[in-house]
Amino acid sequence: MEEQKLSFVGKSFERKDGLIKAEGRAMYAADREFARMLYAAAVRNPRPRIKILGISDEKAKKVPGYVTLVTYKDIKGQNAWPVLDLDYPFLPEKIARFAGETVALVVAETQRAAKKAASLVEIEYEELPNIQDPLEALKPDAPEIGGTTDMKNVYAHFTIQKGDVDKAFEEAAYKVEGTFKTNYQVHGYLETQGSIAIPETDGGVTIHSTTQCPYYVVDGVAAALGITYNKVKVIQTVTGGGFGGKEEVPALVAAHAAICAAKVGRPVKLIYSRKEDFQCMSKRHPGWAHIEYSADKEGHLTGCRVKYVLDAGAYSTITAIVLFRGTVHSTGPYKIPNIDVKTFGAATSKVPCGAFRGFGQPQINFAQESLIDELAEKIGMDPIEFRLKNLLNPGELTATGQKLTSSCGLSELVEAVRKKSGWDKKVNLHEKKGHIAKGIGISTCYYGVGLGAKGRFLDRAGAMVNIYKDGSVGVSVGNAEMGQGALTVFAQIASETLNAPMDLVKTEEVDSSRVPDSGPTVASRGTLMGGNAIIQAASPLRERLFKVALDMLIDKGGTSGKMIAHDGVFEMDGITVSFTDVAKEGWNRRLKMCEEGWYVAPHVSFRLDNGQGDAYVVYSYSADIAEVSVDTQTGVTKVDKIWAAYDVGRIVNPMLATGQAQGGILQGMSWSLFENLQYKNGIMVNPNFTDYVCATTKDKPEYDITFIEKLYDEGPYQAKGMGEVPLIGVAPAVANAIKNACGVRIDSVPLLPEKVWRAIKQKNATKEAK
Amino acid sequence: MEEQKLSFVGKSFERKDGLIKAEGRAMYAADREFARMLYAAAVRNPRPRIKILGISDEKAKKVPGYVTLVTYKDIKGQNAWPVLDLDYPFLPEKIARFAGETVALVVAETQRAAKKAASLVEIEYEELPNIQDPLEALKPDAPEIGGTTDMKNVYAHFTIQKGDVDKAFEEAAYKVEGTFKTNYQVHGYLETQGSIAIPETDGGVTIHSTTQCPYYVVDGVAAALGITYNKVKVIQTVTGGGFGGKEEVPALVAAHAAICAAKVGRPVKLIYSRKEDFQCMSKRHPGWAHIEYSADKEGHLTGCRVKYVLDAGAYSTITAIVLFRGTVHSTGPYKIPNIDVKTFGAATSKVPCGAFRGFGQPQINFAQESLIDELAEKIGMDPIEFRLKNLLNPGELTATGQKLTSSCGLSELVEAVRKKSGWDKKVNLHEKKGHIAKGIGISTCYYGVGLGAKGRFLDRAGAMVNIYKDGSVGVSVGNAEMGQGALTVFAQIASETLNAPMDLVKTEEVDSSRVPDSGPTVASRGTLMGGNAIIQAASPLRERLFKVALDMLIDKGGTSGKMIAHDGVFEMDGITVSFTDVAKEGWNRRLKMCEEGWYVAPHVSFRLDNGQGDAYVVYSYSADIAEVSVDTQTGVTKVDKIWAAYDVGRIVNPMLATGQAQGGILQGMSWSLFENLQYKNGIMVNPNFTDYVCATTKDKPEYDITFIEKLYDEGPYQAKGMGEVPLIGVAPAVANAIKNACGVRIDSVPLLPEKVWRAIKQKNATKEAK
Repeated sequence: MEEQKLSFVGKSFERKDGLIKAEGRAMYAADREFARMLYAAAVRNPRPRIKILGISDEKAKKVPGYVTLVTYKDIKGQNAWPVLDLDYPFLPEKIARFAGETVALVVAETQRAAKKAASLVEIEYEELPNIQDPLEALKPDAPEIGGTTDMKNVYAHFTIQKGDVDKAFEEAAYKVEGTFKTNYQVHGYLETQGSIAIPETDGGVTIHSTTQCPYYVVDGVAAALGITYNKVKVIQTVTGGGFGGKEEVPALVAAHAAICAAKVGRPVKLIYSRKEDFQCMSKRHPGWAHIEYSADKEGHLTGCRVKYVLDAGAYSTITAIVLFRGTVHSTGPYKIPNIDVKTFGAATSKVPCGAFRGFGQPQINFAQESLIDELAEKIGMDPIEFRLKNLLNPGELTATGQKLTSSCGLSELVEAVRKKSGWDKKVNLHEKKGHIAKGIGISTCYYGVGLGAKGRFLDRAGAMVNIYKDGSVGVSVGNAEMGQGALTVFAQIASETLNAPMDLVKTEEVDSSRVPDSGPTVASRGTLMGGNAIIQAASPLRERLFKVALDMLIDKGGTSGKMIAHDGVFEMDGITVSFTDVAKEGWNRRLKMCEEGWYVAPHVSFRLDNGQGDAYVVYSYSADIAEVSVDTQTGVTKVDKIWAAYDVGRIVNPMLATGQAQGGILQGMSWSLFENLQYKNGIMVNPNFTDYVCATTKDKPEYDITFIEKLYDEGPYQAKGMGEVPLIGVAPAVANAIKNACGVRIDSVPLLPEKVWRAIKQKNATKEAK
Repeated sequence: MEEQKLSFVGKSFERKDGLIKAEGRAMYAADREFARMLYAAAVRNPRPRIKILGISDEKAKKVPGYVTLVTYKDIKGQNAWPVLDLDYPFLPEKIARFAGETVALVVAETQRAAKKAASLVEIEYEELPNIQDPLEALKPDAPEIGGTTDMKNVYAHFTIQKGDVDKAFEEAAYKVEGTFKTNYQVHGYLETQGSIAIPETDGGVTIHSTTQCPYYVVDGVAAALGITYNKVKVIQTVTGGGFGGKEEVPALVAAHAAICAAKVGRPVKLIYSRKEDFQCMSKRHPGWAHIEYSADKEGHLTGCRVKYVLDAGAYSTITAIVLFRGTVHSTGPYKIPNIDVKTFGAATSKVPCGAFRGFGQPQINFAQESLIDELAEKIGMDPIEFRLKNLLNPGELTATGQKLTSSCGLSELVEAVRKKSGWDKKVNLHEKKGHIAKGIGISTCYYGVGLGAKGRFLDRAGAMVNIYKDGSVGVSVGNAEMGQGALTVFAQIASETLNAPMDLVKTEEVDSSRVPDSGPTVASRGTLMGGNAIIQAASPLRERLFKVALDMLIDKGGTSGKMIAHDGVFEMDGITVSFTDVAKEGWNRRLKMCEEGWYVAPHVSFRLDNGQGDAYVVYSYSADIAEVSVDTQTGVTKVDKIWAAYDVGRIVNPMLATGQAQGGILQGMSWSLFENLQYKNGIMVNPNFTDYVCATTKDKPEYDITFIEKLYDEGPYQAKGMGEVPLIGVAPAVANAIKNACGVRIDSVPLLPEKVWRAIKQKNATKEAK
């Protein structure tokens, strides 16, 4: 084949959806209106765990515009949301398991009437025992409140067993251990959850849903209505942020809207208020971990023990997938010969947790990277030197025994941030101006791209590439734009493969009936899976069109036969034809100008009994250095700058990748320092953005971002995935910087001022006592 | 491959869309409501041909709910409808060419306000010369009113030149000649034209249109708005009848709606009243033909001369395609060595004519089959015997020199209806009871399936077959259901290829962005093109699934390796697995379960200069015998029975095929006897179903329908196409039966009572005079 330099991949094209979003023309779920549409509102469980004795709409009925009450009795399909397990009913029949759970729905002519009527529906109930602490849930005498495994109150349990850990610890020169905790994180997407269900004449339904995972919505709606998949069409509305929060739960919201619509035979819209969204939509799992590391006297890691517990909440949802990822990565990106990891997803009587950018890794990365610093200190080594001695390099084995065969630039990342940040000068400086102490900290992480062994049936994706008669191109995918730039990146990949100008390529928003189930758009798999599917679809078109172009150039007088395709133009001997003309000629020849692509990720083989095998097809990497200023009088930490370096393979769009990095860093910093969802007696106390504090642009650190592109041959134009790595390592880098600044180790996220202040006070007291 | 008997093709499955239509749940264009929708109404040219001096909405503005006036100035794209030529403006700038032409549009908040306001818009104009008669238009001194060729007032001109016609006529033993005329036919679809245009946020538009040809709508709308094809999505609404009337003109209606929507930035609905539909939507071309035949003394046809003129109306639209078909078939389904055909599509100042079931053939078939009977009579031969001597049989050459290589059962058809009707006894019976004379007449026809040489770039189609995770199937096509049963036939073809149960297969209604341009659903090409595209898509899926089934059967204990697939079940040694289970296992294996199919009809080579070559890929055939009762006192003809026999290849669904036949016969009979659209001084005088008479079910003859399936290997399961043959031969069979009944030859359609009565009166007068 003729040579082609990259014309579209690797360039900072502007977002395809930028302008419509900036101008307010984008149609989010709440913006969409349909003729004869009704509105639904949820009736929510007021208490942590209840037995439902009755539901009455006597008072609600009196609200003008009231249409009907919808309960589990209206469900024509199965009353069990098909996610991983079937423990979560679409609407509870007897027992509701957490405060805020949807118990019933009200349908009315206006949204206001629906909300009003829902507030007047009366639930008769008796309270049942509940559990707030996941460690309590694992105790033998705990009441049984959930669980889907053979262990009481446990939704998932994994283990990694490698080598002889006891022996490693017996023989160790150095040992450290610690217990670490992290709290919830709220996704903080601008757009709350929402769905519109439109009954179709064939008994099917069309769903407009804000979602990262249209096919999960199909699963949920088909199950709830008891209809075949070919009768459920899910259209992903313009989605105002996901971060994992629109992974599994939109299926529940859509199913509720669909159950209502099926009952009333009219379109039904269900849009969540922010409070509802806080109360019952998924969150990042709070984590608890006890970790131990051992090292020999040269500073080589020899062993690691981990016990890791996630607070899953009232239902299992996708805790198993989140926990699996946390498990696989729990010992850190290090070569460690002896490993014993045990992890648990425990039931509590609180909001069910689910996917969140990082997917079970930030919690454990905070723990193990904090402890790695402690170990380095104990050994008396610079944290970077210690890491470099132990980091995974190409050819080495991960905790699960997976050999890293290619595209692994972690040590280079560490060297890059070390150099750019001036680490070597700063790390022992302990600069203090008045009561402001400055410090610097590092963390590293690796991140398995895609769903890996636990979700391997889902690691495939489809795409359709359709070249119209005028040379414009439609790209249909099953993976979603949710703000991350997928529409643009997918268009670049299609442009590159076809040699079609970017402005002629349109990525359609997802319609589940256009493309086969492409799995979720999560786990940094969008570009890898969707991009590869587009290449699969576009490649045969490319082959046909390039032959047409060759013919046309020869017809126009080209003689050398040496054709260069670049930037939407085909060139030979200085003669050119445009992509548009080539496409038109293709149509004249009645060539097949539309293809379906299907990408299947390489098989991974993994044993669940000992946690050994290939957990993911490939890994992305990050190294973060945080520089902080700690006010030692108040305990307030300010992150001044983050130097981050990433190996995520080829960067398809540097501008968008930088945006992903900045957003991930800020979201990670927000979780590290500020975000602090609180329950009191089983009731969420701060379900709003007034009382629940997130970082804003005013809090943002200075960013210094470096990409080191270790190309991954299996990826689309050698890209891996980058959605999540920027978030993961921020918390431990900040915690390590606080330690560096003022000598205190904070063992729980968020790293609140009161914790820092108390620790400094205690340290000073200890010092004085000495 | 393992053997498979046909399980789904060849069986009378009920219509997929039967119930929703019967129950009134189907959503036609007029039924569809969208939020914030406005309504458009057309302002129409009141006179035959005018120069527009000004358009004023001064009075219209005062109508409550009035929004705006839309004129050609609002067109952002090209003001020329891209059909074959570019003579038809979307909205006229200076000259309007026929009474009823859309001159401007009004947009208002309600349909009633729009209609009212449109009626108050004032057009200032001066009248221009006009032409009502197509033969006048061809005269040298006619004013120039249209035309797109180098001949004045001519939109299309074709010729067939073969052998030496002059010599044939010189040497002939027998000669006949005659002039025949046919009038308009109105499609009489239950649903009038209508379209809704919805502006999209990316500057594109979604169109909901009642149409047979969604891709023509894309062409029109993209041109009018000046946007690329990937921004135009056309959704075919449930379509209440087409018959060719929803071939080209829906593009015009949709473009009008789109121009309005683009101006106001809101959805705009444009639904035609029946009167408007009569006045400006396409009709069957009135035809005029002068034909001469010569034969040798044994009764072999030796020569044929044809001059054939179609009254195209004010714009060219698709007259060239209609005329081409009429030209190719103009000498009848006979082997004739010497041919001279000249045909013309002439401009008049009347409604532009376009596609209509039969497509230029019924007009000329009436003429030539009437004259063939005259020739048989002159020679003294039975009309059937004469035809059998001359009919095209396999291996013989058509008028254009095309060799009929396969699937040609015309002589058998004739023998079949001869036998079933009792022809041999009846033809010389001349039974008369009182003033009711009974008679019998025959006609034959052949029909080139698809678009053939004149539209060969369009003879290709796409399809997408998508097997969902639960084994349900979605079939997307580009060819439209319009009442003929395509949804059902396509599902049968998909079921057959996949071995999937019919109730799991859903044919999606057409969305132009899902499937590449598949050409129009006309010319009896739906089953052939769409069906073949489905097979292209489903075949690789079949191959994959059949292997999975084989594995599963072996796993379940099958040993012989001999698998039979039938009725949605796979069987080996008495062990079975269902299609559903096989599909699910295919998904478990992450197989590609969605494919795009693309079918390209075989190339046809045709010379336009002498009309020689392969005009169509294959032909369908019919023989019709009509038995009539003529009231000699009133001239009223009643068709008592039609014996019809068809060779349309494999019958995919006998029930639906029978329905197609009955409908075609009745529509042909209606045209033959009743339908009589009239102009007076350039104004249509009977644009409604009160004054324009169609046959109803009360008029329907007894039907006797025979299918003789000459399999066509290139067709989907060896089918050809059957939409049109049932209509074509009805008029001449009835005219020949009238001649047989009472000895008069009526040379123009409709065969009105007054014409028959007058002819009988004249014949009796002549007889008495003798």
